[in-house]
Amino acid sequence: MKREFEFIDGLRRMPQLSSPDLITGIGDDAAVFTLDPKWEMVVTTDLMAEGIHFRLDYTSPQLLGRKALAVNLSDVAAMGAVPRFFLFSLASPKALGSDFLDGISEGMMELAREHNVILIGGDTCASREGLFLSITVLGSCLRGTAVGRNGARPGDLVCMTGVLGAAALGLRLLEAGKRLNATLTPEEWTAVSRHLDPQPRVTFGYRLAEQGIVSAMIDISDGLSSDLTHLCHESGVGCELWMDALPLASGATMQDGLNGGEDYELLFTLPPDRHLCLQRLQEEFPELPVTTIGIVTESTERFLIEGGVRAPLVAGGYDHFR
Amino acid sequence: MKREFEFIDGLRRMPQLSSPDLITGIGDDAAVFTLDPKWEMVVTTDLMAEGIHFRLDYTSPQLLGRKALAVNLSDVAAMGAVPRFFLFSLASPKALGSDFLDGISEGMMELAREHNVILIGGDTCASREGLFLSITVLGSCLRGTAVGRNGARPGDLVCMTGVLGAAALGLRLLEAGKRLNATLTPEEWTAVSRHLDPQPRVTFGYRLAEQGIVSAMIDISDGLSSDLTHLCHESGVGCELWMDALPLASGATMQDGLNGGEDYELLFTLPPDRHLCLQRLQEEFPELPVTTIGIVTESTERFLIEGGVRAPLVAGGYDHFR
Repeated sequence: MKREFEFIDGLRRMPQLSSPDLITGIGDDAAVFTLDPKWEMVVTTDLMAEGIHFRLDYTSPQLLGRKALAVNLSDVAAMGAVPRFFLFSLASPKALGSDFLDGISEGMMELAREHNVILIGGDTCASREGLFLSITVLGSCLRGTAVGRNGARPGDLVCMTGVLGAAALGLRLLEAGKRLNATLTPEEWTAVSRHLDPQPRVTFGYRLAEQGIVSAMIDISDGLSSDLTHLCHESGVGCELWMDALPLASGATMQDGLNGGEDYELLFTLPPDRHLCLQRLQEEFPELPVTTIGIVTESTERFLIEGGVRAPLVAGGYDHFR
Repeated sequence: MKREFEFIDGLRRMPQLSSPDLITGIGDDAAVFTLDPKWEMVVTTDLMAEGIHFRLDYTSPQLLGRKALAVNLSDVAAMGAVPRFFLFSLASPKALGSDFLDGISEGMMELAREHNVILIGGDTCASREGLFLSITVLGSCLRGTAVGRNGARPGDLVCMTGVLGAAALGLRLLEAGKRLNATLTPEEWTAVSRHLDPQPRVTFGYRLAEQGIVSAMIDISDGLSSDLTHLCHESGVGCELWMDALPLASGATMQDGLNGGEDYELLFTLPPDRHLCLQRLQEEFPELPVTTIGIVTESTERFLIEGGVRAPLVAGGYDHFR
């Protein structure tokens, strides 16, 4: 919605103080600040609303709790930081039973344990209609290692983890009435699981940053075409995206892969001479494919390359401003 | 509501990892963690819902924005920390015009400038019904200076800033149809202003902590009787509260003073031999009264003392568990 863009834009244009401790403010996957010479803190927040971000008839409370935390962990991963602590707030309508709310907590705390993050606070209140979940995650990294969206340079390779379009395919299956149960084919199960229970690439993200391999990074939440556009825009560069190289999920269409959101894979750029380091790092993650899908260009234009033919790359993913 | 208590209790009982970096987890005004020997980070979050925490016909968007931030600043103040950064998330129904939302931002950013805190992130989404505001504030303090609720010791004096019951009186006036306009008497104006635009005691809070004067601190958000009960409970002590000493706001009843919430004054305990330091600190804040209102006792019982007669002190303020 246009209104949201205008609202955020208005907010960002309001005068505010600056601080030498603030390294990255609004506009990246997470904010970065520091209080001492050694560490940086990374902080991000997401608000999820019933009917907008999730539907209760598509998911289980456990998976909903996992996903609410996962999308925030993904933002911290996209900064190359280690998630450490989180806060969880919830506004719940009376109609939702306590079993449902406990299920959300269970799923969330299960994922928290998997990623060694600790719940340190939150707030709860009633909602007249609709369930709202607000999570804030705090992460840390060694000073100077946080990876923003703005460091891509001409000649850098564009790479990504995992596969594309599974979450979009999964959502389509859910919309068509399928549910995560034994009636699904293995391919459908994978796609629906990816939509309902995304896997934030936490360890890979901070290992990439630790090694100082990457020049810019973002997670694919809105869709590859949109997130790559964000990255190019923030870095003041353009790109060529190689259609034939895109790692499409089984059953996903090219449209799912380019414009479907919520894959929560990491999209990053690195100088070509670092590709060997990347390959060595990949050996630590034998089950996580990493694919080179394009190249950063000096011109700020963005192109899709297919069979030697160039077409403009249009940001066709989820648009927060729409 | 009972349900909320059970939900939070269930959440807290779920297994989770521990960290040597976490100094204070869930259960105080804010969580405290550290990454280095010199500094501690303090973090708190509040979720405010229309119809639960505020009514749009009682306030202006600017005052609503100020209050949403103020209640979080008050929590950081109650830890004796300096608020530094904040995140702001909002779920808004379509019916709310963009002028209204911009008004919220304006008020919030105005208070942010007054207290030198910087907006570093957030999220916005649609709401099918009702406006929700979620704010997270990050503060810092020198290591070891954060003041919890659990340090009160028998013999400590119980003190508080400001006056009691103004916010409760203000709410009653709003409920009776009064609004913040020229028809109010000066006394009514003060009370309604206190309800709609509370003044977090930020500077006084961290100056108290810096000086190492106080043993425990909490802000009066639920009501004096309830917040003093929280503090005694966490410290494993009791208290005598001196009715005759309570600094009632002009026009407020004893019921407003004891059980009315949202005054956002600081309630703290200190050893009697520190009272001179407190008096010296008070000289820096000539417009902020500080009153000694009772004493901490070894028995965990809590009493009201009036004219030499003891009566049990009942936590009669806002009960999150009700």
